[in-house]
Amino acid sequence: MRILIINPNTTASMTEKAAAAARAVAASGTEIIAATSSMGPVSIEGHYDGALAIPGLLHELKERQAGYDAAVIACFDDTGLEAARSFADVPILGLCESAVVTAGFLAQRFTVVTTLERSRVLIDNLVRRYGMGDRAKVRASDIPVLELENAASDAIGKLRAEIERALADGAEAIVLGCAGMTDLARQLQAIYGVPVVDGVAAAVKQAEALVSLGLSTSKRGSYASPLPKPFVGALSAFSPALKIG
Amino acid sequence: MRILIINPNTTASMTEKAAAAARAVAASGTEIIAATSSMGPVSIEGHYDGALAIPGLLHELKERQAGYDAAVIACFDDTGLEAARSFADVPILGLCESAVVTAGFLAQRFTVVTTLERSRVLIDNLVRRYGMGDRAKVRASDIPVLELENAASDAIGKLRAEIERALADGAEAIVLGCAGMTDLARQLQAIYGVPVVDGVAAAVKQAEALVSLGLSTSKRGSYASPLPKPFVGALSAFSPALKIG
Amino acid sequence: MRILIINPNTTASMTEKAAAAARAVAASGTEIIAATSSMGPVSIEGHYDGALAIPGLLHELKERQAGYDAAVIACFDDTGLEAARSFADVPILGLCESAVVTAGFLAQRFTVVTTLERSRVLIDNLVRRYGMGDRAKVRASDIPVLELENAASDAIGKLRAEIERALADGAEAIVLGCAGMTDLARQLQAIYGVPVVDGVAAAVKQAEALVSLGLSTSKRGSYASPLPKPFVGALSAFSPALKIG
Amino acid sequence: MRILIINPNTTASMTEKAAAAARAVAASGTEIIAATSSMGPVSIEGHYDGALAIPGLLHELKERQAGYDAAVIACFDDTGLEAARSFADVPILGLCESAVVTAGFLAQRFTVVTTLERSRVLIDNLVRRYGMGDRAKVRASDIPVLELENAASDAIGKLRAEIERALADGAEAIVLGCAGMTDLARQLQAIYGVPVVDGVAAAVKQAEALVSLGLSTSKRGSYASPLPKPFVGALSAFSPALKIG
Amino acid sequence: MRILIINPNTTASMTEKAAAAARAVAASGTEIIAATSSMGPVSIEGHYDGALAIPGLLHELKERQAGYDAAVIACFDDTGLEAARSFADVPILGLCESAVVTAGFLAQRFTVVTTLERSRVLIDNLVRRYGMGDRAKVRASDIPVLELENAASDAIGKLRAEIERALADGAEAIVLGCAGMTDLARQLQAIYGVPVVDGVAAAVKQAEALVSLGLSTSKRGSYASPLPKPFVGALSAFSPALKIG
Amino acid sequence: MRILIINPNTTASMTEKAAAAARAVAASGTEIIAATSSMGPVSIEGHYDGALAIPGLLHELKERQAGYDAAVIACFDDTGLEAARSFADVPILGLCESAVVTAGFLAQRFTVVTTLERSRVLIDNLVRRYGMGDRAKVRASDIPVLELENAASDAIGKLRAEIERALADGAEAIVLGCAGMTDLARQLQAIYGVPVVDGVAAAVKQAEALVSLGLSTSKRGSYASPLPKPFVGALSAFSPALKIG
Repeated sequence: MRILIINPNTTASMTEKAAAAARAVAASGTEIIAATSSMGPVSIEGHYDGALAIPGLLHELKERQAGYDAAVIACFDDTGLEAARSFADVPILGLCESAVVTAGFLAQRFTVVTTLERSRVLIDNLVRRYGMGDRAKVRASDIPVLELENAASDAIGKLRAEIERALADGAEAIVLGCAGMTDLARQLQAIYGVPVVDGVAAAVKQAEALVSLGLSTSKRGSYASPLPKPFVGALSAFSPALKIG
Repeated sequence: MRILIINPNTTASMTEKAAAAARAVAASGTEIIAATSSMGPVSIEGHYDGALAIPGLLHELKERQAGYDAAVIACFDDTGLEAARSFADVPILGLCESAVVTAGFLAQRFTVVTTLERSRVLIDNLVRRYGMGDRAKVRASDIPVLELENAASDAIGKLRAEIERALADGAEAIVLGCAGMTDLARQLQAIYGVPVVDGVAAAVKQAEALVSLGLSTSKRGSYASPLPKPFVGALSAFSPALKIG
Repeated sequence: MRILIINPNTTASMTEKAAAAARAVAASGTEIIAATSSMGPVSIEGHYDGALAIPGLLHELKERQAGYDAAVIACFDDTGLEAARSFADVPILGLCESAVVTAGFLAQRFTVVTTLERSRVLIDNLVRRYGMGDRAKVRASDIPVLELENAASDAIGKLRAEIERALADGAEAIVLGCAGMTDLARQLQAIYGVPVVDGVAAAVKQAEALVSLGLSTSKRGSYASPLPKPFVGALSAFSPALKIG
Repeated sequence: MRILIINPNTTASMTEKAAAAARAVAASGTEIIAATSSMGPVSIEGHYDGALAIPGLLHELKERQAGYDAAVIACFDDTGLEAARSFADVPILGLCESAVVTAGFLAQRFTVVTTLERSRVLIDNLVRRYGMGDRAKVRASDIPVLELENAASDAIGKLRAEIERALADGAEAIVLGCAGMTDLARQLQAIYGVPVVDGVAAAVKQAEALVSLGLSTSKRGSYASPLPKPFVGALSAFSPALKIG
Repeated sequence: MRILIINPNTTASMTEKAAAAARAVAASGTEIIAATSSMGPVSIEGHYDGALAIPGLLHELKERQAGYDAAVIACFDDTGLEAARSFADVPILGLCESAVVTAGFLAQRFTVVTTLERSRVLIDNLVRRYGMGDRAKVRASDIPVLELENAASDAIGKLRAEIERALADGAEAIVLGCAGMTDLARQLQAIYGVPVVDGVAAAVKQAEALVSLGLSTSKRGSYASPLPKPFVGALSAFSPALKIG
Repeated sequence: MRILIINPNTTASMTEKAAAAARAVAASGTEIIAATSSMGPVSIEGHYDGALAIPGLLHELKERQAGYDAAVIACFDDTGLEAARSFADVPILGLCESAVVTAGFLAQRFTVVTTLERSRVLIDNLVRRYGMGDRAKVRASDIPVLELENAASDAIGKLRAEIERALADGAEAIVLGCAGMTDLARQLQAIYGVPVVDGVAAAVKQAEALVSLGLSTSKRGSYASPLPKPFVGALSAFSPALKIG
């Protein structure tokens, strides 16, 4: 099967890192296709960046139609997840949902460690929406997203300090709350002796699971396909109108 | 004060209807400025339409910067509300949040009557996020949004039937769950003898309240202003980069 | 329109402070009428005081019937709010409900800072009932209510210390959790650079909003008008019996 | 031990019925003392009646101080429960809390059947506050409270019809949601073969339990004793001031 | 009446301690019968021990059938509570449920202090299931269960330190979260001046209450009696098959 | 990898059906090993059966130690899931948790259709514990578990009728709430055009995912390995004591 990994920000190095993480865990018959958004912010830090990353995400989904069996949105904010599920006929996975669900099989209480304070409450709200509000806490480590791409920064030191605070507070497992941390999971798991869940890897496995089970997004109710209608102006190409013709 | 009413879909007749509803309730010193999105879907029915309405919405906010004291997003899905709050330095109001909060002052239990089934769960999730999950139900009346603009349709008949089911089920007040129903609130309130809340009117009053109280969106945490960074491709104009210069 | 501000405790200086705060934010066409309860405790600190403040509150509502378009109960415990809504035919606002709803438009996470520990859980329970349990925390600053009337006390110092603890804990906005703090909001907002919401001001604006929208408490279900029946003894004057005659 | 049963409405026949129900289940060493409120409404139907029943209730508690080891408030709305707990140094029990807690030991899902629609949401809110919102539903049977005192009415027929609807909807046990139904529990339990819980009986046993365990209301935090302070006007006798002297 | 106290672990000294605590609070007409499980772990610390304590518990219930009017499971994890309720025709009480319900009559906020970290989340989940998640916290004091039987250990010192942390954090009452702490409640209540609830004592009083009210577990729905069917292998004696014959 | 499918009831035909369902979805490198419990009930219908199925389940886990990389408990009640996770060093999956999590990726609202009424609330409680209480409903179809093994019964007719009621009530996807329905998922999905999730298949894919990600149950906190201690009587073989030696 082919799984499309879409980086909804426009930084190709992050796409490559996510794709590498995806390939590292993909099953033998799985092909990972990576796509970087061609429009929007270079990183997603907060609601404004996130909303403006969605058109680029949907554009990639649309362009490559029929070329993939499932797609993973490679941002821990689950940017555009609901819109993508409405659009596509194949399963769409988000990192946060996949990761917290995965952690839920391993621990009763766990902590998501993310980057900036502005993302903390956003992710906390996602965690609650996914039903994990009683079981998961979210902590910010004060790391700008792109600093994770910079080997010279102290990003890992800050991240480790925050993980240690989470463990002292009773966390039984850790979820890495940014796509840019995807390469650190195994190493941190070895250091701390608790499960450390990376969202990219978790989402790839969920995508494989759904495809091999013959399951896809329900087109009844919440995620019904977009109704054919005109879209105007700079976004007119997004009209689902051709679906009817 | 000046309140900007932005219709995030591109149908000007709906903008006019919302602006009229806004002017009908605005205080004497309030000027209502209406804007129609120039890019995106002609109506917002579901997550795909909603996500693609946000750039047009943010564009209007950006273009008219400094020209308004508060803004109302004239769609009951609260499309782009969090992104708009992050972007703007003035209060931003959504119809759903304003309407359910208003209904909460009037009744212990109430029902939101919206248009299509695909919007029902979306609004139900908003209602829960706003803390009204124990108090409010959401019902769909199977009316396409633009049918509300068509006097010849049976939209009002369907809406009334759904309101009657809500009252039989214990609703103490009704919230009209679509910006396109804004002209019907007074009439329905007279018929049924219970409060009928329209989101446009409710949001205008909340906007006036916040402005006159000297309150605006917190720029600490969740809604911190976008960080200056490049945006690429078709959306490069949305970069908040100039904010630093 | 005329808005009645009822202080449910019997301390006239607190009524004056609340009335001044109300007038400071009232719209040009709004007349603020202030009333002090004539029976009950001199301040409301905990459940016993609160319950015994309700007859005085209802007495004021009853005496001035037809003389106001909405009423605000000027105590942050929302003392007697449900009874007042059942009694009156006009909108009734409480400070806590108005303030947390207002803060909810401005921030995802916020903190109410109140006076005594005995009021903390009481307010925390209100906050949960209003659907803000996931978003708002409540902190006590160990200030007796009437100490706020005493310029020589260190009430403001204690309050500021508690606000600083709230901000360090992630609060994005502050709600002042006592009617007696109503004069401090603007000053504290200027100091801390986050929204500081005062309940009296918030409630006045909600009252104006409801009146101008033609909305009033639903008389169907929870807040149905009192049934005509005898009341006996010292409280016989509260009988709603005359309503039938 | 002596348990004071206070009827917070002023109808002596209801007090007698509650006292009889209490005596029927009291342990051999328990003396039941009954008191009828001397001021306020003749029945409690909704928030207005309820609030104005509290002074009479507190008056009885105060008058008989040191004459009882625990008290039961004989109204299913748990009228004045928190104020009474703050005032008294002995355990105070409410019917709703006692009954739903008792039902919780017997069934996973149960239904409270009460009188009027205006009480239904009020009790539903209590049930949620007591943590049973996921397990208990509340239904109204459209019976005015005093009709339960009238043998010629069809009150029992209406009550049975509502119980049958509850059972058809999956209820595993029934709670009778009005003090005036206290004499019907055994009979209905025999008819329907499921536990039928009466609040008066349940509260008496909880009172006995707490007294014999040497437990009383915590005076730390929420239910701290009223602070000594003046009360003015018609309610000046309620001042707790003498407590300091 | 006869109340059976079953210790689901196999340590007879803990049974004796629980029986003594039960007898100390039992009403004059109540006979306490104590039983120690004859199969399974010597103490219950975590899910594995707990699950393997259930057959021994059910065996005691079954063997003594008709010899008791209610039973108490003397472990704070409420081990096997649902299975026992399904099996038995008499009321079955657990310590955690009984204790938190009892504390709920006395305080708005309280803390359960238990033994090991591995039991903390288990009990926290129980507390949430019993509807007290908003009101009760759970703390572990790092005491192995059997250390409570060892007078030379510092178990009480650790327990007191944890209670003091709970009080500093706003607890209004304390629940002792292990059957082995049953002898300490009165002493700790005297020291700290807040209610200290012991689960064994609380459960005995709830058992007495239910029996004297003529109430027993609903056999409709969740706790319906086991269906007659074969059980095979080492557990064949547990087959409820004879119930039909 | 090797995945152990343990049927916690003792009916070998159900094991075979589950194993077949598991093999039908297993990845090419996955070997499915099936085990039938050798002690306990022939089917699991309610809490009593469930509790007595756990020793047999744990026995299989223990006997085959080191012979599998993950295990699936093939009962929709998630019988013994927490005990198994505490015991084992490999990932353990339950059907209910796996299925509702899987459905959560596909639909906002869905319904679990199970067998008997006595299992309905049990599963509803699981669904809530897994955080899906706002999104999932549970319906019983009144089918005894073993009737699903009888081709001549009308089990499928009853199941289809219940699915149709769920869809009429707004379900966007269906979860089959019994291991014995595992062979029906694809057929029902084809009929109804919505995702139909089978727990056995879902759990196998989650097991594969966790193993390939190098993740296993956290041994910190809730699921810490059993402490070495004696077990007595008929269950002495379950002592984890040898783990220390």
